[in-house]
Amino acid sequence: MMNDIVENAMLDKLASLFPRSPLQLNRMQESDAEVVLPGTGNGSAIAVTIDSIAEEIATGLYKDPWLIGWMTVMVSMSDLAATGARPIGILISELLPKNCEKAFLERLQEGIGDACHACGTSVLGGDTNFSDGLILTGCALGTVEANRRLSRIGCRPGDLLFASGPLGKGNAYAASRLLQQRPASLTYQPRARLAEGEALAGIATACMDTSDGVLATLDQLMRLNRVGFTLDENWEQAIDAEAGNQARRLAIPPWLLLAGEHGEFELLFTAAAECESRLMARAGQIGWQPLRIGHVESNPVIRMRLYGTVQPLDTARIRNLPHATHGDVRLYLSSLLTMDAELRRKLDNIVTNA
Amino acid sequence: MMNDIVENAMLDKLASLFPRSPLQLNRMQESDAEVVLPGTGNGSAIAVTIDSIAEEIATGLYKDPWLIGWMTVMVSMSDLAATGARPIGILISELLPKNCEKAFLERLQEGIGDACHACGTSVLGGDTNFSDGLILTGCALGTVEANRRLSRIGCRPGDLLFASGPLGKGNAYAASRLLQQRPASLTYQPRARLAEGEALAGIATACMDTSDGVLATLDQLMRLNRVGFTLDENWEQAIDAEAGNQARRLAIPPWLLLAGEHGEFELLFTAAAECESRLMARAGQIGWQPLRIGHVESNPVIRMRLYGTVQPLDTARIRNLPHATHGDVRLYLSSLLTMDAELRRKLDNIVTNA
Repeated sequence: MMNDIVENAMLDKLASLFPRSPLQLNRMQESDAEVVLPGTGNGSAIAVTIDSIAEEIATGLYKDPWLIGWMTVMVSMSDLAATGARPIGILISELLPKNCEKAFLERLQEGIGDACHACGTSVLGGDTNFSDGLILTGCALGTVEANRRLSRIGCRPGDLLFASGPLGKGNAYAASRLLQQRPASLTYQPRARLAEGEALAGIATACMDTSDGVLATLDQLMRLNRVGFTLDENWEQAIDAEAGNQARRLAIPPWLLLAGEHGEFELLFTAAAECESRLMARAGQIGWQPLRIGHVESNPVIRMRLYGTVQPLDTARIRNLPHATHGDVRLYLSSLLTMDAELRRKLDNIVTNA
Repeated sequence: MMNDIVENAMLDKLASLFPRSPLQLNRMQESDAEVVLPGTGNGSAIAVTIDSIAEEIATGLYKDPWLIGWMTVMVSMSDLAATGARPIGILISELLPKNCEKAFLERLQEGIGDACHACGTSVLGGDTNFSDGLILTGCALGTVEANRRLSRIGCRPGDLLFASGPLGKGNAYAASRLLQQRPASLTYQPRARLAEGEALAGIATACMDTSDGVLATLDQLMRLNRVGFTLDENWEQAIDAEAGNQARRLAIPPWLLLAGEHGEFELLFTAAAECESRLMARAGQIGWQPLRIGHVESNPVIRMRLYGTVQPLDTARIRNLPHATHGDVRLYLSSLLTMDAELRRKLDNIVTNA
């Protein structure tokens, strides 16, 4: 009887791929809002975040429906990770094109389901509407004991800077998808660093995910904490190998893999130098190897070794480039390459004058 | 320094109109996910819901930016109300057109802020992106003691059926906006029935909001509970006076104000007959007057008095009409008018044959 109604039949089908959360009190369709027990002790807080995947679809960056579904879950789960939270679940609002094909929709739902499975969480509910284009919005919920939550604010000069994993894959993928006629078969399938985020309680002095790219993340941490960051001389070792190869093929200087705005969804975090061994011990327990990539300085500037010398970077200009180039991908990349050329020219001048 | 970054400056501006929740542990920009203390005792659950406002904007049903902001908050808050939850706050994802004017955006934010104020709640966070059209998605959170939550399921034959307030304004507004050259100055500004939802704990045997119109809501309650509903003979007294006038001007039969899919965001709920006086007493305490509009029957059909006789309605056909008419508003209305004509013809036949 329920499925005599087209909308019910559609929701039933959309939801059937997803397992229910054991914490959810209501069954399908039983409630106007989903009701979940946080399932933690006293002093526990709710962490919640919302993210839409729209531009990535409109520009053609994400075409594979499975990846669109996967990313809808992962971008929100990554925010929970950066807060040290454990996921309760996710709600998803799907705006589907009116002519959406069945196979496309199934792959989309599979991507959502697979990402939830990878994060040990479930879809709690959602909303489905029809629109001109495809837009997905995820709203993830988690719990975190108030005294275990991670914040973007709290790092101090002298703290060490870490990445949760290799960097640059988001931008290598974007460059390949948007600039190459035949995109390389680069795998892009970020996993929210949830266990890692939880392991950082009491250790990380600041933490943020790289959803907008590494330099944008550092720039934001710089502004919020009124400190600076200097990357280690060997920063290139933190670049993902596949991403590095891709950059070489496209003749893109490797530091631009950190500058571009399409992130790899790793965590960047800081810790006091005396906590490094405790961090590494705790990381080892969950089979994780954080990468030490730099340190915090009092002077609010971001510096890295480029073309033989440690240079300050105009990260405000880098972050504002997407606005300045109005979403024109080729103009955006050529503007980044112009910045690279300016840095090299500046150096040539220094060398020439010396 | 923060506002050197265009995105930060924009977010700062967007958020400045909204007061912060006292339950929120993180400050602006401090956290990848917003962190809130549920602020209730043991046994309390989190209620959460997501809703996008997209079609209403695309079709021109909502044009006033203030109303778009207001509705973004109210549709989600209304879902919390139907669950008996008390709001914690809302997250809002805004997809803005690239050429969005400053004054438009300010009115939009004002509508969001005013609706939050009316619900005694706050914006917890959000996400802003640019897109071709305007789309807003709200995700509201609330708390409800597990034993006080309202559900759509639980009503029994003999229970009485109530509406939280006058009905039909959603469809009167829609008819005016979409069909009239000069829309009437009908005020449409639904308020989520939050205090009313909380007052229904332990009384309502089933509850659902009329976001999709009254008959669609009853149809869904019928399917979920495997019961039927008969409206009282005097159901027209529950029609909002302004909505009734508007229907007369447009020559729309009043029952179609219950059939259309644009809701008034009232609650429909059921209660055992012996609870009626307790309901009215508790309602009186918060200055509320629920409207008794019908009762629950065992036969799963929805019936109301039309053209002199109590008739069963094909509510599946009514609910599936938006799909069948592919979003063509005039075709949708003419299909509803065809159904009305069929009902009248059927009656003429009965009278003629008698």
